[in-house]
Amino acid sequence: MSKFWSPVVVRLTPYVPGEQPKITNLIKLNTNENPYGPSPRVLAALKDAAADPLRLYPDPNADDLKATIARYHDLTPAHVFVGNGSDEVLAHAFMALLKHDRPLYFPDISYSFYPVYCGLYDISYRAVPVDEAYRIDVNDYDADAGAVIFPNPNAPTGRLLGLADIEALLTRLPDVVVVVDEAYIDFGGDSAIALVQRHPNLLVVQTLSKSRSLAGLRVGFAVGHPDLIEGLERVKNSFNSYPLDRPAQLGAIASFEDEAYFQEARAKVIASREWLIEDLQELGFDVLPSAANFVFARHPQRDAGELAAALRQRAILVRHFKAPRIEQFLRISIGNDAECEALVKALSEILR
Amino acid sequence: MSKFWSPVVVRLTPYVPGEQPKITNLIKLNTNENPYGPSPRVLAALKDAAADPLRLYPDPNADDLKATIARYHDLTPAHVFVGNGSDEVLAHAFMALLKHDRPLYFPDISYSFYPVYCGLYDISYRAVPVDEAYRIDVNDYDADAGAVIFPNPNAPTGRLLGLADIEALLTRLPDVVVVVDEAYIDFGGDSAIALVQRHPNLLVVQTLSKSRSLAGLRVGFAVGHPDLIEGLERVKNSFNSYPLDRPAQLGAIASFEDEAYFQEARAKVIASREWLIEDLQELGFDVLPSAANFVFARHPQRDAGELAAALRQRAILVRHFKAPRIEQFLRISIGNDAECEALVKALSEILR
Repeated sequence: MSKFWSPVVVRLTPYVPGEQPKITNLIKLNTNENPYGPSPRVLAALKDAAADPLRLYPDPNADDLKATIARYHDLTPAHVFVGNGSDEVLAHAFMALLKHDRPLYFPDISYSFYPVYCGLYDISYRAVPVDEAYRIDVNDYDADAGAVIFPNPNAPTGRLLGLADIEALLTRLPDVVVVVDEAYIDFGGDSAIALVQRHPNLLVVQTLSKSRSLAGLRVGFAVGHPDLIEGLERVKNSFNSYPLDRPAQLGAIASFEDEAYFQEARAKVIASREWLIEDLQELGFDVLPSAANFVFARHPQRDAGELAAALRQRAILVRHFKAPRIEQFLRISIGNDAECEALVKALSEILR
Repeated sequence: MSKFWSPVVVRLTPYVPGEQPKITNLIKLNTNENPYGPSPRVLAALKDAAADPLRLYPDPNADDLKATIARYHDLTPAHVFVGNGSDEVLAHAFMALLKHDRPLYFPDISYSFYPVYCGLYDISYRAVPVDEAYRIDVNDYDADAGAVIFPNPNAPTGRLLGLADIEALLTRLPDVVVVVDEAYIDFGGDSAIALVQRHPNLLVVQTLSKSRSLAGLRVGFAVGHPDLIEGLERVKNSFNSYPLDRPAQLGAIASFEDEAYFQEARAKVIASREWLIEDLQELGFDVLPSAANFVFARHPQRDAGELAAALRQRAILVRHFKAPRIEQFLRISIGNDAECEALVKALSEILR
């Protein structure tokens, strides 16, 4: 607290990201990173980017990247917005599209950055309870909503909402912006990008951090009707003209140009998830159905906080949220097979 | 305009950056980039960064980079904030430190992003006229100011304010945050970072884009009392946990570790500026004294807009602001010697 702070700073409760420890030899299953590295084409593009043109500003509009994403999804560049990670894209969406007189609706169990953005931009919101099976019911999002946002699959539950449900919501609330935050969609769901051409009130946000193994490069994007994109551009161009550096733009383009690598890496993660779920169930865990690169699991007899601490003793990090309704769950990122096996072995020792 | 936009979007007038043309063989003297590439150590660090760890999030707090900058300026990491270019650092400063009940003061001729940030965050401001020689007079910044910001050297004039003037202001207004935006300080001024330990109301903002030849990497930073830095961190952590990607953090650290290259490159730019000013004066231009990597010049007999257009015909880009008081000036970035010579030759032909 300082007399020099603007009043808004005092009311903020900043987001706390998952731990990024600096010690090595940890099995890091706490921030949903991809266990497989980026495509070799991405690495080659980044090596090429380490050159004299770094003295020049990047393209402020990232036209080549937007064109690449537009082609990939059969849309036009005017349908695409890019930002410094999907967190920045979401921040701009909160300011540009989600602040209205009526409250913003999002699930009570959801990405914990959403209420933080609301604090930053003074947006009133309603946290809509997911059901007892941790599912979103779109019928709970009623006409009083000024706007709607939810992750799909939801985080940290991993539960997927089908496109029919999403389209029903978009059709029922045609004057309300609905943001679908698809950070994890590539691990088992159908993207709502397929609905963009039919629904001008839909914005879909994705990231290259998870399925494209580029958490360290900070690239996210949004896809929607050009009017929504223009709203985002106006805020972005009032905040920072050049949010994506040259390496990020070039690396992201290269990622979309290596479809085979992308498909192979995500298939491996999905396969590991499926056997990990079975192994956890054999250990007595309740595991929610997951369409993401993590599982959300609780053990009927063991306290989640204690389990997380015991795993940490064994140099395995998982994420435990001390939040209502989910304090007995662990969110466990899908590692490579050796990491998943080490996790199962450690848990079986702890539970013995 | 769209019914889906938040009301704030409608009132925005986004910043327009200098043109970043995609054609080659242009002599690009319009956005104050460095004519010399980044240090070879930076390029080597970036090549090393193109590797598997890109699948992992970067350090959200950029501790190594903060420690590097702190050491370089004989301060502690708690005195340092880093962001995605100094534009992002400035944006957070506007929200965190410059929004108060009384108006923000800044020079009428100044970085044209300042009023844009005020629009974004609904900050009232007063544009304080610089004098007839385009100098800032700190006595014009009175006790009614809720906060103060100015570039030093000022942009686009290039005029430098001495540290004694800045310290007098800090001492006279001890309850007012003063942000000194030093994007160009390395080309001829003394940094106000020297005053940080004595003045808790001072925040100094710098960038690696200009003197460190890294406009394409997007790294900026702020230095000030830890209370001011904490205010910035609270806003940053409510906006985007990971604004600096892995390549940016590693490249920036490498830049500060190559002092010899930095000193050599900025000395070359300063030397070119000095003879360019003389040549422009010989051509009849009035050139303001410059402590930056650009000059601000007008020709008593020739319209600046027409000169800029004629230069463009010859594939030379300079910046012309169609703004009151400065519409007869050209802002010309310092290129390498061949580029400066080509500029002088073109102007002498145009003026013949």
